[in-house]
Amino acid sequence: MAQHNAFYAQSGGVTAVINASACGVIEACRQAPDQIGKVYAGHNGIIGALTEDLIDVTQESDDAIAALRHTPGGAFGSCRYKLKDIDTHRAQYERLIEVFKAHDIRYFFYNGGGDSADTCLKVSQLSEKLGYPLTAIHVPKTVDNDLPITDNSPGFGSVAKYIATSTREASLDIASMCATSTKVFVLEVMGRHAGWIAAAGGLAGDGPGEPPHLIVFPEIPFNRQAVMERVQQSVQQNGYCVIVVSEGARYEDGTFLADAGNTDAFGHRQLGGVAPTLAGMIKQDLGYKYHWAVADYLQRAARHLASKTDVEQAYAVGREAVTLALAGKNAMMPAIRRISQAPYQWDVISAPLSQVANQEKFMPRDFISENGFAITQTCRDYLSPLIQGEDFPPFENGLPKVAKLKLAKVERKLPVFTL
Amino acid sequence: MAQHNAFYAQSGGVTAVINASACGVIEACRQAPDQIGKVYAGHNGIIGALTEDLIDVTQESDDAIAALRHTPGGAFGSCRYKLKDIDTHRAQYERLIEVFKAHDIRYFFYNGGGDSADTCLKVSQLSEKLGYPLTAIHVPKTVDNDLPITDNSPGFGSVAKYIATSTREASLDIASMCATSTKVFVLEVMGRHAGWIAAAGGLAGDGPGEPPHLIVFPEIPFNRQAVMERVQQSVQQNGYCVIVVSEGARYEDGTFLADAGNTDAFGHRQLGGVAPTLAGMIKQDLGYKYHWAVADYLQRAARHLASKTDVEQAYAVGREAVTLALAGKNAMMPAIRRISQAPYQWDVISAPLSQVANQEKFMPRDFISENGFAITQTCRDYLSPLIQGEDFPPFENGLPKVAKLKLAKVERKLPVFTL
Repeated sequence: MAQHNAFYAQSGGVTAVINASACGVIEACRQAPDQIGKVYAGHNGIIGALTEDLIDVTQESDDAIAALRHTPGGAFGSCRYKLKDIDTHRAQYERLIEVFKAHDIRYFFYNGGGDSADTCLKVSQLSEKLGYPLTAIHVPKTVDNDLPITDNSPGFGSVAKYIATSTREASLDIASMCATSTKVFVLEVMGRHAGWIAAAGGLAGDGPGEPPHLIVFPEIPFNRQAVMERVQQSVQQNGYCVIVVSEGARYEDGTFLADAGNTDAFGHRQLGGVAPTLAGMIKQDLGYKYHWAVADYLQRAARHLASKTDVEQAYAVGREAVTLALAGKNAMMPAIRRISQAPYQWDVISAPLSQVANQEKFMPRDFISENGFAITQTCRDYLSPLIQGEDFPPFENGLPKVAKLKLAKVERKLPVFTL
Repeated sequence: MAQHNAFYAQSGGVTAVINASACGVIEACRQAPDQIGKVYAGHNGIIGALTEDLIDVTQESDDAIAALRHTPGGAFGSCRYKLKDIDTHRAQYERLIEVFKAHDIRYFFYNGGGDSADTCLKVSQLSEKLGYPLTAIHVPKTVDNDLPITDNSPGFGSVAKYIATSTREASLDIASMCATSTKVFVLEVMGRHAGWIAAAGGLAGDGPGEPPHLIVFPEIPFNRQAVMERVQQSVQQNGYCVIVVSEGARYEDGTFLADAGNTDAFGHRQLGGVAPTLAGMIKQDLGYKYHWAVADYLQRAARHLASKTDVEQAYAVGREAVTLALAGKNAMMPAIRRISQAPYQWDVISAPLSQVANQEKFMPRDFISENGFAITQTCRDYLSPLIQGEDFPPFENGLPKVAKLKLAKVERKLPVFTL
């Protein structure tokens, strides 16, 4: 088999473990020198391919690549940029072929979520529709856990562990303070359309009366009166109330509780501020003193508290992507399969990208309790294995050590291309 | 020496390591059985003493007490309640004597910050002014690091480590996203009057251009134009801007940027929401897409990321408090002394409570750079030792294990007392 080069890039919101997938891809490529020559990373996702903005990963030491496994964020830069349709924007695809030809790239690895899977699927058409011999593999990643087919999405388990841990820790704090001070604590978590991350907060406690006392899911229309009754009941029974609220919490008519009014490049509305909104309602309706926190990027960057299971899975899908590519499996995605629940066992299978792109996996209704305020045992059984194990990064001078890459740019061979 | 009982209680905002001090006090008491009989914990601070609401710590196993060392929050309940003056509220002091007499309490350990030190100092007057043989010792604790005399306050080092780590992690996230999405990230941290915690964010990076690019200190009057210039410059130079802002950020005239309008029992205004306020200003003035996070209780409850130095110091001041009490040193507080900077060495000395109560230690001006936006090397040299070392708690089922106490109440012997 002749040797050709590989392209790897990161897309969409990053996670605590997307670089662990990068590590898996790059290490697997390095172990297949007969088939794969150089690995080029796209600077800022697909934009790097379009603009011939390539990073020469070959120049990074094995140690630096290994350090990616414990480095949060996207080491090569990510992007929120969606490739347009091949029929209407053929020039973009022809440009990709130019760049890939110029650098002898025949393996394409795209690391992202649902929107990015769409981009990868589009790129995979280069071979079928335009005759360029490229194998495109999508490497799954999203804290939102909303990718279909795969049992869970790499990146989610670590956020889940962070949110469950933070909820438990903050609950101990407010439990200490509630006699004479704060009665309500509201933690806002990510999850625009699906309540997976909010549900993870439910792992913090496991007995009656244990926090969180209320989870506000995007799946359950927000009913102010019912929520207030629940809060009041919890304060009366437990002395305090801990609430985990999804940024995607919304009313029956679909209006978000907090809507910052901006939209991102994918057309999604930028959310944020539901915690203070909800805390304000509670103050207004019930008069309780409150504290609130918005974890935002902290939750998806918290590599210091990553789930070992998540790190291993992120790395494994990276490696498996290379296996699939070398087997010529175009337009596929490695996916996690849950073989058994207890003991938890998993392996990596593959899924056709056409069944992944632009699909969102929602929480099953039976993961949420009948009253809509808690998770069920079924949900707990699903979530719990994903947060198992710790994989602390090395620390230096009191802080997590992160990969320091050279990020040497590949010399451009083509004219400038404007997006 | 005759055997008498001890009282221990927690007061004010709790920390990730206040229970490590509790552990130190209780273990040291258990090791002095000739002098100290039972340890009673006040339920909810001084209120527990006034209302005879006592927890029988004797019933807790050694293992449970050892587990306090890695459990955040205040295990016995804290309070924001300030003892009134002895001359105007003599009845409260007489009640304390009644309770202490009824339970043979002659050692009083109060674990808190500046406001609580005032309460402890007042209690210490029982012996001088009312002739009850009590030795009152204050055990220092505050995330705000604003206690005088002690080189640093137990509780601060762990928040500092959490904020520095979170800033570093979130910075890697936004650095990945900035090419096509978020340009500005704002992290709001605690610290009402002093910028110690905000300063700790400055440890995240250590080279030119490294985040955070801007720290908004309460000590430096907020100048919107200067801040916007700094933000714009950072985005132009680095592609993004990471900001750590203190909840106490204020204008020249003392008005807080974000003022929730509520006051706590000590008369402090409840703050919160400066991150979204500042982010909104940036959007308005510069048009940058932003994300913001408010760490709130997460930062001071994050025992999972505690500084080993902090845990050791919190434990040490707890033990030293017992040593001071047994030596009859009324109205004293153990304090941390920095013996040398590099290598960092410290020991525990003692300070008269009269010099501690109601005093706030502010950041020296030379800890803040001339432009007011960063920390200096002097500040870095001071802060760095405090975040050294990790002391991860044991994990069980993917989550930090916390102490489970019986919290058995001591039988009441006295009539009800209304606060």
